[in-house]
Amino acid sequence: MRTHNAVNSITSPHLTSVPTSLGGPVAPSRGALRPLGLGDVTITGGLWGRMQELNADVIIDHCLGWMERIGWIANFDRVAGTASGHHAGIEFVDSEVYKLLEAMAWELGRRPDAVLDERYRGIVSRVAAAQDEDGYLHTSFGHAGQRARYTDLEWGHELYCHGHLIQAAVARLRTGHDDELAAIARRLADHLYTEFGPDGRMAVCGHPEIEVALAEFARATGEPRYLELARLFVERRGHGTLGTTLFQGHEYFQDDVPVRDAEVLRGHAVRALYLSAGAVDIAVETGDDELLAAVESQYLRTIARRSYLTGGVGAHHQNEEFGDDFELPSDRAYAETCAAIASVMLSWRLLVQTGDARYADQIERTLLNAVLVSPRADGRAFYYANTLHQRAAGSATDDDELSERAEASMRAPWFEVSCCPTNVARTLASVAGYFATTDGAGVQLHQYGSYTVDTTLDGGERIALSVESDYPHDGAVRIVVVDAPTRTVPISVRIPLWARGRAEVAVTGAGAGAGAALGATDAVFTVERSFSPGDVIELRLPMEPRFSHAHPRIDAVRGQAAVERGPLVLALEDVDLPEGIDVEHVELDATFSPVDDLDGAIVGLRRRTAPEDEWPYTATVAELGEFFTATMRPYKDWANRGPSTMRVWMPVSAGS
Amino acid sequence: MRTHNAVNSITSPHLTSVPTSLGGPVAPSRGALRPLGLGDVTITGGLWGRMQELNADVIIDHCLGWMERIGWIANFDRVAGTASGHHAGIEFVDSEVYKLLEAMAWELGRRPDAVLDERYRGIVSRVAAAQDEDGYLHTSFGHAGQRARYTDLEWGHELYCHGHLIQAAVARLRTGHDDELAAIARRLADHLYTEFGPDGRMAVCGHPEIEVALAEFARATGEPRYLELARLFVERRGHGTLGTTLFQGHEYFQDDVPVRDAEVLRGHAVRALYLSAGAVDIAVETGDDELLAAVESQYLRTIARRSYLTGGVGAHHQNEEFGDDFELPSDRAYAETCAAIASVMLSWRLLVQTGDARYADQIERTLLNAVLVSPRADGRAFYYANTLHQRAAGSATDDDELSERAEASMRAPWFEVSCCPTNVARTLASVAGYFATTDGAGVQLHQYGSYTVDTTLDGGERIALSVESDYPHDGAVRIVVVDAPTRTVPISVRIPLWARGRAEVAVTGAGAGAGAALGATDAVFTVERSFSPGDVIELRLPMEPRFSHAHPRIDAVRGQAAVERGPLVLALEDVDLPEGIDVEHVELDATFSPVDDLDGAIVGLRRRTAPEDEWPYTATVAELGEFFTATMRPYKDWANRGPSTMRVWMPVSAGS
Repeated sequence: MRTHNAVNSITSPHLTSVPTSLGGPVAPSRGALRPLGLGDVTITGGLWGRMQELNADVIIDHCLGWMERIGWIANFDRVAGTASGHHAGIEFVDSEVYKLLEAMAWELGRRPDAVLDERYRGIVSRVAAAQDEDGYLHTSFGHAGQRARYTDLEWGHELYCHGHLIQAAVARLRTGHDDELAAIARRLADHLYTEFGPDGRMAVCGHPEIEVALAEFARATGEPRYLELARLFVERRGHGTLGTTLFQGHEYFQDDVPVRDAEVLRGHAVRALYLSAGAVDIAVETGDDELLAAVESQYLRTIARRSYLTGGVGAHHQNEEFGDDFELPSDRAYAETCAAIASVMLSWRLLVQTGDARYADQIERTLLNAVLVSPRADGRAFYYANTLHQRAAGSATDDDELSERAEASMRAPWFEVSCCPTNVARTLASVAGYFATTDGAGVQLHQYGSYTVDTTLDGGERIALSVESDYPHDGAVRIVVVDAPTRTVPISVRIPLWARGRAEVAVTGAGAGAGAALGATDAVFTVERSFSPGDVIELRLPMEPRFSHAHPRIDAVRGQAAVERGPLVLALEDVDLPEGIDVEHVELDATFSPVDDLDGAIVGLRRRTAPEDEWPYTATVAELGEFFTATMRPYKDWANRGPSTMRVWMPVSAGS
Repeated sequence: MRTHNAVNSITSPHLTSVPTSLGGPVAPSRGALRPLGLGDVTITGGLWGRMQELNADVIIDHCLGWMERIGWIANFDRVAGTASGHHAGIEFVDSEVYKLLEAMAWELGRRPDAVLDERYRGIVSRVAAAQDEDGYLHTSFGHAGQRARYTDLEWGHELYCHGHLIQAAVARLRTGHDDELAAIARRLADHLYTEFGPDGRMAVCGHPEIEVALAEFARATGEPRYLELARLFVERRGHGTLGTTLFQGHEYFQDDVPVRDAEVLRGHAVRALYLSAGAVDIAVETGDDELLAAVESQYLRTIARRSYLTGGVGAHHQNEEFGDDFELPSDRAYAETCAAIASVMLSWRLLVQTGDARYADQIERTLLNAVLVSPRADGRAFYYANTLHQRAAGSATDDDELSERAEASMRAPWFEVSCCPTNVARTLASVAGYFATTDGAGVQLHQYGSYTVDTTLDGGERIALSVESDYPHDGAVRIVVVDAPTRTVPISVRIPLWARGRAEVAVTGAGAGAGAALGATDAVFTVERSFSPGDVIELRLPMEPRFSHAHPRIDAVRGQAAVERGPLVLALEDVDLPEGIDVEHVELDATFSPVDDLDGAIVGLRRRTAPEDEWPYTATVAELGEFFTATMRPYKDWANRGPSTMRVWMPVSAGS
């Protein structure tokens, strides 16, 4: 087995820039495309605009309120000696505070707000006061009455928490502030380099996160030691150094096989995806194309064989882990919200490296279905796990009740392991960072909605676009040129996989008609011309509801179909069925074509019931009942009208 | 909420008999039927004869060898002070030693064996030497360097181990020996009565087992205090006294709802079923018909909604627990071997109470499929969990390798939690105890194979039958009367659910033709007449392979069919497919009727493949390939020819 633990310095030929203001979450120094950050892309309305408002108005405050109430922020005061009492919560609740700081930083970058700024600075000060002299910073290890530092790398999540602090600092740097949190993060990262660097201990953290954080921090600060440390953490992994338990083997930790030798993402889904995102960053910055290709290959297999229709990943409650290839039960689909977010992080990194539109497809699908399903419509409760089939109507969690991890059948206001709400908050605040890129010559639009793009091309010329759409409600996307160079500029739009062969692009304005015809399999359509202000590229995506069928190896949904409308996966809830009928006893009549109905679809159904108190395996099949119709609505909106049963995949009546 | 913890003495009107020799595992003092024990039923050959020989020749020695090798038996020597070193294995490995002692006791009762007897007595002596002065007996609690007694009732499994010791003592008493183990058990049970009885602490053990053990020990010894203590443990449960964790709530421990108030079996399957078996025993002996009815109702719902086709129960790896109603994935079906054995224990108790043949159906199905699948053909490796769908061929475990709990894809020789091998051993040694009953007037035959029945009816007359059959290979069962009273005697045979309306019964001999005609829905057929030696009742069960379909709410196997032959569930393994084709890419052609082939069936198949490296949800369905045939074989025998992929439920080609 090759070993990559050798102490050698990194030349980091690519790591030169120190971005200082209004970037996005990822800033690679090379790649097919370059991300446009929050200074270049501004969401102006529509679904994403509403979600960002909800985040700003409700979700961030909700998270802050809970973490103050149950003492998670006060943990820092306890370490600083300004508060008494025992550490509150599990070992890694620091990370929630840091993810909230990250969300606040992006939010402040997006829209200055004096009240939020004061709150942000207040928390940062409390965090700062808890930092040890040597840079170490953690509220549940290393102080009087606590376990010693780094004595439980498997489960202590110390470096995981450190990673989130560093990511929060990156957000602050990228939004133009090299202030207190960046200083804290520098001291911490320097401490980590001493402890775990080339001359430090040969160890990794049980929960990856430090890798992606250090790589991005290296980009944000220009400090190659941080990249070197991130690289060491990736290379050390896969050599079985983490202790296993009866229930968690090396695979759980991605410690079974070195990252570059693995064939697929496996084990704990969030861990696997954070690790992969970090590995891509490191591969890009160190010129390690073998590592980049390995992660891309693993992820493509994961998309093809281990992804739910929603883009959600990680099928098992047991260990929050990936199932086997094509093992994707709707029942108790785990599809953790954080795993979906981590998948978006990885997709984005691969999109900007390769320019391959399938990663943009995956981002769209995952954000709109697997991430947006998490927050309740009012932003005050969240799903941690995201089932695709709710057999029994759950009971609503009291808004004052702290829930256990992922078992809530309705969204819950807060969890003992509450990774998802703050992850949603930081994602919503920075989501514009996933919308568009430049290749220097022109602009690529990957996601649709209402937003503006205003950036500078390689030649120093300004290009400004106004994207206007009520997508995903409406399939019409108008891209209005506000400002453009006089020279020829390519502007690309993504044609989602589900729309290929049925999408239309029209160009109006001075040079109308000059674009090439749209091919049936084109994933990207590029209009390349000399634009004038007021020119419009109009993309029309077909939004008629459609049936989708699963790969024949996905046994869990055999004999079933899903209904999708545009990028949205639909679901049937019993609150949309006639009184006395629930989703457990109906099948989809596939001879009736679904009819568009707002964001959903009217579908044809038939009842099928069989005795439920006898041996359930018989020689015959139950009869179908009468035809009726009902409305399926976006999966992301389910369980917002009280407890209900729900299905994404609907049994299809054969021969109905 | 009612409380049943009140200190009141039990009158135990029914508890009067003290069986002294050759009984079976269960001896209720009332009920519709009375079990015939190992003194009355002797297996003489056939499948069960071969399994008992394998148990006697291999399995028991295998278990003994492992437990000596890895120091689990030596744990007793360490407590006794005759060996040094630390306790070996997890907290509850004592229970494995006790289950092996139980198996040995039944085996010695079945067939005296001087070598086995010496081994048995040797282990008992070592156990005896570890018993504390006050009767307490456990090798990982209560001694120098160990945690104090009863300080971890949730996870310590102390009373669980005690229960298995007591069950081993019951086996010894029922096979005619009131010797050292019974004395140990009496001292232990007396200690438990002091600690946990009416004047003791109000607590229960996290893992039920003590309840069923104490109830049976009360029957075997006639001591009402043991029954009273068992009753207290059942009544105390369901009041949330056990501490929960992030992953295990009250439901996991059946501590959420009192036994008599629950609606279905839930939480950890083995715990739920052991508790239920104990509750039935207690209900029977205390005349508590409400409790009996509650458990029966919970179990009937479990059979109808939470059972696999094999009879296996407990769908989830997570917490080894029951899934929701109808949530029964084939993928990673947990279906723990011990849960199947516990289900047989409960079915048998309800069968003898009610006489309802569906419990005998469940015993047959469960024993032949969900239990017999556990041991490898050579008896030297076991399944702990029993999936119904193996997507990737596993790798064989080295015969010297200790495995973790349930994740082995091939059978493993021994586990860190090795509850299943010893459970299989005790079940095989005592399996004749599940075959036949008497109601005092006549005899009821519930299971088929080659065995003799020789017992005494209420009037003191002898009845002796020889049951001759190569069942389940062959559907012909000859019941030859060896001896019978001169008066009219009813002899009943069970018609399995799958055979109803297609079975035939013929009677030959002196009064031939006097039996009533067999009805299409008869579950039991009774021949009532004056029998003479040499008279024959011949039962013919239809063994043609047949398709089975699942209840429409069992989504996991929608669009699929199983093939069964008699009581055996069949499975397709890729070792039975042409080179280069695996079970993941074939579907069952339902237009081709399966053809009988030894214990299996030749079925028609078609390939269906789709790209495996693209987004797996599409608007179209993959095409079917050419027709070919292959043999499906009994599920219980799978993975005995090297690593393979396997399916029980086969996709059915619609419109093939």
